Amino acid sequence: MKRIITFTTDFGGKDHYAGVMKGAALGINPDAVITDITHEIAKFNVTEAAFRLDSVYPYFPEGTIHVVVVDPGVGGSRKALAVESGGHFFVGPDNGVFSLVFGRYEDCTVVEITNHEYMLEDVSSTFHGRDIFAPAAAHLSLGVNIQELGNPVLSPALIDIPRPRVSGDEITGEVIYEDSFGNLITNISSEMVKSGSNIYIEQFRIDGVSNSYGEVGKGELLAIIGSSGLLEISVNQGSASKLFKMKRPVVRITLF
Amino acid sequence: MKRIITFTTDFGGKDHYAGVMKGAALGINPDAVITDITHEIAKFNVTEAAFRLDSVYPYFPEGTIHVVVVDPGVGGSRKALAVESGGHFFVGPDNGVFSLVFGRYEDCTVVEITNHEYMLEDVSSTFHGRDIFAPAAAHLSLGVNIQELGNPVLSPALIDIPRPRVSGDEITGEVIYEDSFGNLITNISSEMVKSGSNIYIEQFRIDGVSNSYGEVGKGELLAIIGSSGLLEISVNQGSASKLFKMKRPVVRITLF
Amino acid sequence: MKRIITFTTDFGGKDHYAGVMKGAALGINPDAVITDITHEIAKFNVTEAAFRLDSVYPYFPEGTIHVVVVDPGVGGSRKALAVESGGHFFVGPDNGVFSLVFGRYEDCTVVEITNHEYMLEDVSSTFHGRDIFAPAAAHLSLGVNIQELGNPVLSPALIDIPRPRVSGDEITGEVIYEDSFGNLITNISSEMVKSGSNIYIEQFRIDGVSNSYGEVGKGELLAIIGSSGLLEISVNQGSASKLFKMKRPVVRITLF
Repeated sequence: MKRIITFTTDFGGKDHYAGVMKGAALGINPDAVITDITHEIAKFNVTEAAFRLDSVYPYFPEGTIHVVVVDPGVGGSRKALAVESGGHFFVGPDNGVFSLVFGRYEDCTVVEITNHEYMLEDVSSTFHGRDIFAPAAAHLSLGVNIQELGNPVLSPALIDIPRPRVSGDEITGEVIYEDSFGNLITNISSEMVKSGSNIYIEQFRIDGVSNSYGEVGKGELLAIIGSSGLLEISVNQGSASKLFKMKRPVVRITLF
Repeated sequence: MKRIITFTTDFGGKDHYAGVMKGAALGINPDAVITDITHEIAKFNVTEAAFRLDSVYPYFPEGTIHVVVVDPGVGGSRKALAVESGGHFFVGPDNGVFSLVFGRYEDCTVVEITNHEYMLEDVSSTFHGRDIFAPAAAHLSLGVNIQELGNPVLSPALIDIPRPRVSGDEITGEVIYEDSFGNLITNISSEMVKSGSNIYIEQFRIDGVSNSYGEVGKGELLAIIGSSGLLEISVNQGSASKLFKMKRPVVRITLF
Repeated sequence: MKRIITFTTDFGGKDHYAGVMKGAALGINPDAVITDITHEIAKFNVTEAAFRLDSVYPYFPEGTIHVVVVDPGVGGSRKALAVESGGHFFVGPDNGVFSLVFGRYEDCTVVEITNHEYMLEDVSSTFHGRDIFAPAAAHLSLGVNIQELGNPVLSPALIDIPRPRVSGDEITGEVIYEDSFGNLITNISSEMVKSGSNIYIEQFRIDGVSNSYGEVGKGELLAIIGSSGLLEISVNQGSASKLFKMKRPVVRITLF
């Protein structure tokens, strides 16, 4: 059956681990359409994986199965999960990586993957991506009902998602991801921002939100609503990351 | 319909942006065959993208749709283009990235993508790869006629392609790309080179053009016609890039 | 015909060479399922490629064709090979990269690819991945009999695979690969290791083999049987590579 399976991991491009996972999936469903999202999540950074998954999966058709393997607790007591939410499917460790998925839809089906029929024959204690998650995704892509994988999980792990704080006429947010262009992606959503807002990031003040990078000169700082619907701090044809020594600069905007 | 869509961008492997584009394409045509060329074009380097696209697309079957997103002017006034040339299709910004494509065939169809029916519902000002280019490619892969996307463009943007200069019995070219092996790929084509030519690169002189890397000792400098049909300066099992401090060394060859 | 073709190379992610190979394969068999394993094998490191291929291919279904291009001798006298072994297919240079494949099964079919019918029309002396290996793989994926590609090779090249040495009650192995997590993967197989073994790596002693990373504290050194069935030296949620200045630390374990 022709279903899409995506992979999002912290494995890095250097290693062959992502390739092995694809083999495990294609061995079960050779008709699955395998799609890499990224294998460059910062190592063990579950929060980053949760945010980035949230920017990706709504653009895939319903029925897609998203495998996320950022899994510092592999081989320990954390559960292996399969999730169905709003027609989208997810497979990965129960460590909070699906926290933002759970918030998007009222009804989620969450099960613990325990049925060995849907795993590889030998399950290692170091590579559940290959032995449990990719096989579960492949079986789901063949039409196996998610309930077949194991019993419901009532309280899956959640991480504290950093939310902006509103105080008086000011919102204080933070940078949750720096992309390879040097764009600083904040946790302040477009709904919170008025086009005339003033934005303060560390020692800089930005007057208003731009509609495109080109509204300021080359090399100049701007604020813009980025492609994930979040406020971003950017430099036109340059890198905002380079301006700030601190990893996570604070961003404040005035409301009015 | 089973058609190939390739992606060439400056997004980097770290970010999830390439993955999101694939989702946007597969959401429209789940049978499209998605193929990454590279996401490591130097940021905003339209000339590099033009040269590298030219080394790639002739090896794909006719009917393939090549999406190229190196797009410093996103959200500004530059047009979004769809191109058909010699049976190959291209989608990307109107910033010169298709300059070498235009030169290869007498007849090109070039249209501006303006028909919102073939875009995502919400078009951002920062990510046309996802919102315009990938969807246009996916619709083309379904058999939509290129003329349906928008009106013809008579004068698409062109970049100055650096050409070698011929003076007396000497050709002076330049390095247009350094690959990850440290090979220096020049803009001097095989037709200009005789096997007995002397090649001068900065302070070095190379006697003649080798037929394979192994014709010189390990670690030695050589000149060779590379896989793109261009003169390359290489070090056998080593890196020519490391020999030259300057970004773009000048290469001169004597004729015959 | 729908068959999987995988690619393992030292081309790097920056270049477009992997993309060109995929074009050459899809031009011959548009229904082939193209899967990247990694393009980040250390440049020219045939031994690393041999080891990593060995960790990957058993997880792909039989009939898969694995293209391996780590090829310092391209254009010279080394042969181009196609191999069938235990139902798995391999295509690449005759430089020892398939040494571990040859050891796994009693019967191997090894042929030299010489039939120009199954190559691109123009064969360069610098890029056999595109001109010979990818086309051969694509033709195999269409059902062409491996014997059609050329004549049998009786003595394919073999590399010296570094094996652990047993002396008295001690095994001395070495690190054959450091992954991007900083795990040090040794050449000591799980069969050689007892759970109560003491492991010595340079100045450190590790008491026993852990069953999961979480059995030691965060940041602590451990030994574990990794996903390739080999002894690995790791740091829980950290990097063992960083602990050792030397590229290839020696690992000793006591037998009892």
